[in-house]
Amino acid sequence: MSNQTKDKILETATRLFYFQGFHGTGLNQIIKESGSPKGSLYHYFPEGKEQLAEEAIVLSKRRIGAVIQHYMNEFEDVGAALNAHILAMADLFDLDNGLEDSYTMMPFGLLAAESAFMNERLRKVCGDTYKYWESIYYTKLIANGFSDEAAVTLSKAVSAMIEGAVTLSLSQRSNESLLNISKVIPALLAQNK
Amino acid sequence: MSNQTKDKILETATRLFYFQGFHGTGLNQIIKESGSPKGSLYHYFPEGKEQLAEEAIVLSKRRIGAVIQHYMNEFEDVGAALNAHILAMADLFDLDNGLEDSYTMMPFGLLAAESAFMNERLRKVCGDTYKYWESIYYTKLIANGFSDEAAVTLSKAVSAMIEGAVTLSLSQRSNESLLNISKVIPALLAQNK
Repeated sequence: MSNQTKDKILETATRLFYFQGFHGTGLNQIIKESGSPKGSLYHYFPEGKEQLAEEAIVLSKRRIGAVIQHYMNEFEDVGAALNAHILAMADLFDLDNGLEDSYTMMPFGLLAAESAFMNERLRKVCGDTYKYWESIYYTKLIANGFSDEAAVTLSKAVSAMIEGAVTLSLSQRSNESLLNISKVIPALLAQNK
Repeated sequence: MSNQTKDKILETATRLFYFQGFHGTGLNQIIKESGSPKGSLYHYFPEGKEQLAEEAIVLSKRRIGAVIQHYMNEFEDVGAALNAHILAMADLFDLDNGLEDSYTMMPFGLLAAESAFMNERLRKVCGDTYKYWESIYYTKLIANGFSDEAAVTLSKAVSAMIEGAVTLSLSQRSNESLLNISKVIPALLAQNK
């Protein structure tokens, strides 16, 4: 059994967790949709669904972190960087663009909300993931001359806004909430610099 | 069978959906924890779990809407009203205060995220719920002299921030994200008036 098999199982599980949640996804569906034998799943993920979910969260932490970092690197100005980052997400959640193929940026909040009271192990990994993403915004704000206090406040506000806007965009079947966030970022930055 | 029985089933289901989600909650647990016979559940909710979830969402729409309206009425100034509203939520999500008893303001986002791709009927009711709450902020902003455009933008931004901050607060086991939102509201309002 190759690492390719492991990757395929993990990719399938990640996609299903994002769309269906932890409780809405069964191991049998992961086995079936990944086209992998049951033995492979238990070979690579002996702790089953919980381990798969933890690895899916860590995978997303890195992937989404890399996307955020990409936009922070692309523009010197943090306002321009956040604007490009948020507009790219708005594009992704524009359902006409074929959401099913774009699950790397899926609503991470589903796993975070599901685990909040139900699974302390996964809750912690989700909480750490948000902190990691916030640290990328924080570093960029500091590089733009914001004070430590302002950078802490703004990085957490941006993180909360994006998380909420993704949930609202999906629930309202419109990316308006994400597009709207990009409109208020300049005001936030201007007042807090 | 009295309406009291119906209410008890619905209250139990609402609490369980909030903490465990739709997929993580079974009808047997609702029956057991509400202390109601199975026949009562199917008498009042012939469509089963989906109907229970829909009624739980509508109940929360009204209840949380009433809480938001309460804070908007309490202060003439929208900034003061939002501040009081958000600080009250931060108190609620301070786990030392006994969260289990305070489920009226629970993370609505869990049901919204779960239903986004999995259940179009529930997805719509969640999407409408957010729109209703946004309309309460909007009306208050208009009463405070904001333009229609600014009121639309700000009401949606506030809604997204609060939704995200609740998820982050729960996932990070700290109400810091909610407390932080209250800090950036003045800047948002000052720049958009």
